[in-house]
Amino acid sequence: MTIKHNVAILGASGYTGAETIRLVHGHPNLELKALSGHSRAGQKLSDTYPNFGDMMIQKWEDIDFSEIDVVFACLPHGASQETIAQIKDKVGTIVDLSADFRLSDPVLYEQTYGRPHAFIDLLGTAVYGLTEYAKADLQGADLIACPGCYPTCSLLSLLPGIEAGLFQMDNIIIDAKSGVTGAGRKAKEGLIYSEVADGAHAYGVGTHRHAPEIDQMLTRISGQKSLVSFTPHLIPMNRGMITTAYARLAKGVSFDQVTKTYQARYKDEPFVRLMDSVPQTRHVRGSNLFGLGIFQDRVPGQVILVGVIDNLVKGSAGQAIQNYNVAQGWGETLGLEALPVFP
Amino acid sequence: MTIKHNVAILGASGYTGAETIRLVHGHPNLELKALSGHSRAGQKLSDTYPNFGDMMIQKWEDIDFSEIDVVFACLPHGASQETIAQIKDKVGTIVDLSADFRLSDPVLYEQTYGRPHAFIDLLGTAVYGLTEYAKADLQGADLIACPGCYPTCSLLSLLPGIEAGLFQMDNIIIDAKSGVTGAGRKAKEGLIYSEVADGAHAYGVGTHRHAPEIDQMLTRISGQKSLVSFTPHLIPMNRGMITTAYARLAKGVSFDQVTKTYQARYKDEPFVRLMDSVPQTRHVRGSNLFGLGIFQDRVPGQVILVGVIDNLVKGSAGQAIQNYNVAQGWGETLGLEALPVFP
Amino acid sequence: MTIKHNVAILGASGYTGAETIRLVHGHPNLELKALSGHSRAGQKLSDTYPNFGDMMIQKWEDIDFSEIDVVFACLPHGASQETIAQIKDKVGTIVDLSADFRLSDPVLYEQTYGRPHAFIDLLGTAVYGLTEYAKADLQGADLIACPGCYPTCSLLSLLPGIEAGLFQMDNIIIDAKSGVTGAGRKAKEGLIYSEVADGAHAYGVGTHRHAPEIDQMLTRISGQKSLVSFTPHLIPMNRGMITTAYARLAKGVSFDQVTKTYQARYKDEPFVRLMDSVPQTRHVRGSNLFGLGIFQDRVPGQVILVGVIDNLVKGSAGQAIQNYNVAQGWGETLGLEALPVFP
Amino acid sequence: MTIKHNVAILGASGYTGAETIRLVHGHPNLELKALSGHSRAGQKLSDTYPNFGDMMIQKWEDIDFSEIDVVFACLPHGASQETIAQIKDKVGTIVDLSADFRLSDPVLYEQTYGRPHAFIDLLGTAVYGLTEYAKADLQGADLIACPGCYPTCSLLSLLPGIEAGLFQMDNIIIDAKSGVTGAGRKAKEGLIYSEVADGAHAYGVGTHRHAPEIDQMLTRISGQKSLVSFTPHLIPMNRGMITTAYARLAKGVSFDQVTKTYQARYKDEPFVRLMDSVPQTRHVRGSNLFGLGIFQDRVPGQVILVGVIDNLVKGSAGQAIQNYNVAQGWGETLGLEALPVFP
Repeated sequence: MTIKHNVAILGASGYTGAETIRLVHGHPNLELKALSGHSRAGQKLSDTYPNFGDMMIQKWEDIDFSEIDVVFACLPHGASQETIAQIKDKVGTIVDLSADFRLSDPVLYEQTYGRPHAFIDLLGTAVYGLTEYAKADLQGADLIACPGCYPTCSLLSLLPGIEAGLFQMDNIIIDAKSGVTGAGRKAKEGLIYSEVADGAHAYGVGTHRHAPEIDQMLTRISGQKSLVSFTPHLIPMNRGMITTAYARLAKGVSFDQVTKTYQARYKDEPFVRLMDSVPQTRHVRGSNLFGLGIFQDRVPGQVILVGVIDNLVKGSAGQAIQNYNVAQGWGETLGLEALPVFP
Repeated sequence: MTIKHNVAILGASGYTGAETIRLVHGHPNLELKALSGHSRAGQKLSDTYPNFGDMMIQKWEDIDFSEIDVVFACLPHGASQETIAQIKDKVGTIVDLSADFRLSDPVLYEQTYGRPHAFIDLLGTAVYGLTEYAKADLQGADLIACPGCYPTCSLLSLLPGIEAGLFQMDNIIIDAKSGVTGAGRKAKEGLIYSEVADGAHAYGVGTHRHAPEIDQMLTRISGQKSLVSFTPHLIPMNRGMITTAYARLAKGVSFDQVTKTYQARYKDEPFVRLMDSVPQTRHVRGSNLFGLGIFQDRVPGQVILVGVIDNLVKGSAGQAIQNYNVAQGWGETLGLEALPVFP
Repeated sequence: MTIKHNVAILGASGYTGAETIRLVHGHPNLELKALSGHSRAGQKLSDTYPNFGDMMIQKWEDIDFSEIDVVFACLPHGASQETIAQIKDKVGTIVDLSADFRLSDPVLYEQTYGRPHAFIDLLGTAVYGLTEYAKADLQGADLIACPGCYPTCSLLSLLPGIEAGLFQMDNIIIDAKSGVTGAGRKAKEGLIYSEVADGAHAYGVGTHRHAPEIDQMLTRISGQKSLVSFTPHLIPMNRGMITTAYARLAKGVSFDQVTKTYQARYKDEPFVRLMDSVPQTRHVRGSNLFGLGIFQDRVPGQVILVGVIDNLVKGSAGQAIQNYNVAQGWGETLGLEALPVFP
Repeated sequence: MTIKHNVAILGASGYTGAETIRLVHGHPNLELKALSGHSRAGQKLSDTYPNFGDMMIQKWEDIDFSEIDVVFACLPHGASQETIAQIKDKVGTIVDLSADFRLSDPVLYEQTYGRPHAFIDLLGTAVYGLTEYAKADLQGADLIACPGCYPTCSLLSLLPGIEAGLFQMDNIIIDAKSGVTGAGRKAKEGLIYSEVADGAHAYGVGTHRHAPEIDQMLTRISGQKSLVSFTPHLIPMNRGMITTAYARLAKGVSFDQVTKTYQARYKDEPFVRLMDSVPQTRHVRGSNLFGLGIFQDRVPGQVILVGVIDNLVKGSAGQAIQNYNVAQGWGETLGLEALPVFP
């Protein structure tokens, strides 16, 4: 028996939307039925992405959701909650790739995003889809909030140690580097080629919105209040993210315990690769893999965790599909088995 | 009934070998059984490509070819003919990605590559696998020579017009631009990052080995002796190739005839995209597509043909698999349906 | 006695303006007195370019031109002629880096730029500042039109041969490749990093505005009507331009005559480098050099001319200053002697 | 009276050597007299760098040092000490850009570089030329050891706070990112374009040789034993370095004290720019500037120091010349006043 779930992708003209289209196209159980994109409604998808075929882009209001099984919402923050609230009852499952349902605390949401959440009741029902830490909750979930790219890479680096109480909670530093697609497909001066190529810079130092999201999950898993240091940097590559996390071992913990704990925690995770060599972003490009290297620092009692993902796949569209696979009880890797594209 | 053909890939540690591994991995009818690579024999593939799994690299002499259905030979020029001559009788089909069997004339081979071909009898049996122009010959072929990346992109741009007698044969200029993987995975000073990034240059001006290969096919199809002008350039991107070809219309031919001829010739070719806008290499990245834009020049009677491919896919490993699909009578697109990776 | 000419730069917030500031700063006889930029008036220059100091950006209407010796106008096309018409009588010399005064024929201007020129009388007085071909005219010039970057590189490649009657006029093809700063500092989707990096494409095929400018000068020098084929490409680098020009030798002309003619024509030009090896854009980066390689094609009677410049220096701000040096009778290389920045 | 000191550059064929040539060329008091480079001896410099003129490269043994005032030694580590020991008495000043004289403790040198230092007596006489912290010692120095690029950027970020006792010494983390020229001009597989472009990775995690050099200076200035955490990353750009340093404030210290201390310490330093916005490597490209942003972390009591340099200028050749300027009592900025090259 062939399973085919009908898919609508909202916000198809950005990079996240495009990546979702690419992955849905290669997924044996998913069939793309509708695409939305307000500013490009009425155009063919190929007008925006000449490589991506002839399906028409509609307004989301014109989509017949009665024939849709799952919506992947790739809308801007804010717009996403408005749209999801209106279609929530018409569709079996909504997978949201925006930030709108990541923070479960409405107060924290408002502090972080500068305005109140408009659908607090929905907020309470969303499953935070860091897949490796959400498999039970995802079963049959109808609203899934996909983590941000930085939180995905940071949390998968830190959580096994945090979960096992191996690290001190009050001294965690995350230094992150992202490719440029992470900033979206916006015509802003700061994103044009010659402002980015052959250079690098930090941004949002001490203030980035992904820090509270990381804290939320570290707090949840550890049972202790987390407050991490988090500094993102923009570097000249299209895709890819590297987080270098610095953690102090808790009293009495050895480095050997750390590596054993990670090996045990991740040994059955199909998308996690513990690497002996230093992981490189180019080794996961185009794939849903998370690569992790664990290193003993020259500072005694300190460990360095270097994690890499493709920000558009495991950091966004790939994890969204992984979540839907788990929610449906399908094979977790369905549609995500392709090898990385190298170089 | 499931078809599974066993594959050996020779020369697995270069970029062409890696790309063949990636595509074989995603092919429903192919199963990777053996990898060779002399300088890395005894290593795991993951030592070379951490993203590519744990299969061991062997010497090709240690492979048991009795269990292999098809060999993809990604060896350096020269080494390829030596190896193929020795395994030719043991394997059903050999698909050669090197230059060794591309030129069917041994005299031309020697002029071009600077030494005599050692297996002239084999040379006579090889099918030149520019798939769109070789489908009949490929049926059941046992030795397939995959075209060079520049000839693939140039010939697919020019052949429909040449075939129909639309262009003058004595005034064809091809200006080509390639990404850096086209130069192979060699530790040469001229290829290191800072010698390539943020710059561009021509090379092999008037002398590149792909020019005679282009002429061979233009001559074959037109019945007239071809001598093209061909100038390659190296530009700072990993994958991708663009050929800009300039051709004069034959007497009495209109531009409209040109576009109609191309549309007719290519309308059933699954990997050819005639584009209204200017094709971009990034729109075919990671895919087996050939994109073509046909433009009327400001010079009356002159046409400009802009072709793009991913040099590692349609220009190498993808076309190799496309050829094997056709040779086996399988669906031509089998294992090659993935959408391009953008950005 | 120290000479100091006071400089105003109009349009200081774009890349051309920034490069002019950089070069004026290093020029012993020039002193920067005023900067304009309408949308950024009232800001410090360092708000736009943190590397460029604290001078204020004004509206050009607020500049006291009575204290200015020379204006470098880096304004958008159209705006430039309007402004120049108003300040023309107040300033000794205006060097225009826009396209507004490059085409001397008002009819051709209107055809090319889509609207009539508003100051046709001024148009007649402007000197077309391709320095190596304008030295006499530049003496004491008060309005200098700096050539476009593509025309600069193309014309310096072709003119010595054209001037000496070595090339056929009816078969010239120029295939050009430019870095991204050539497109200016505009927040357009097509210019953002991920739309440009790791890819390449042609644009303006058969229609680019620099083609008539090239023809104007080829016609002027040859005395024959020129109609070149010209195709520009965008490639992922910040600065740099390469033009690959294909020309047929006139009857009876030998390749040796070509190289000798170029050597003779350029032997005293301080910024022209005839190279034995293939010139690379990275070898002229940041400098006012024009590098040229002359190659015999495999097609008998055809020559390939590969020229490289830094589009922001010899293709724009550097040539502007070179022109002013010549106009003033100063040393032609003054302020332009710095070695290229490599890598 | 014109001062002209004659310069020899040893190791002219690497990137550091090339950059020293570029800067010496633009220096009013320096004149390049001799170039060495063993593997390229007998070639013209322009064979290696077509942009850099026609001077011959010699063996250093063939240089007549009696006419040389200052040697800039850009040799590989190890080779540098051997050569310097032999020419030390023949030349007034030697500025060493290698690592050979950076660590003053021979035991630490041996631990770090894996072999004993061969000239321990010389080691004792070398001045560690982090210019902003060495001005008195540099007066008349005859052997100057230029700091590594990572130590330069890290130390200039941290020292004012360390010097004033503002930071805790036992919790300093430096996360560094470097462009590819920092790895030198070596034909290694890991440095070729497609292994570096469009990706990023950490390296030398917990083991990099620049960490002891950083500790040496932090210890010297603070009087307390330093042991920093230091993790370098390779990112795809030619030039540029960014160090993101995390420090805990000492008890009772406010953030305001930090910024005031830095402003006071650096107010007269011509190459230090304290920036309100986040510094970008592209804003110092080609210049000797050090840009610093000081940020309050979201973690109370923690400060984030983001420093940027051009690794080939302030991180190498530029600082070498700055040091020689100070040693000679010349203006510190002589030959180093050029504005950054942007973009």
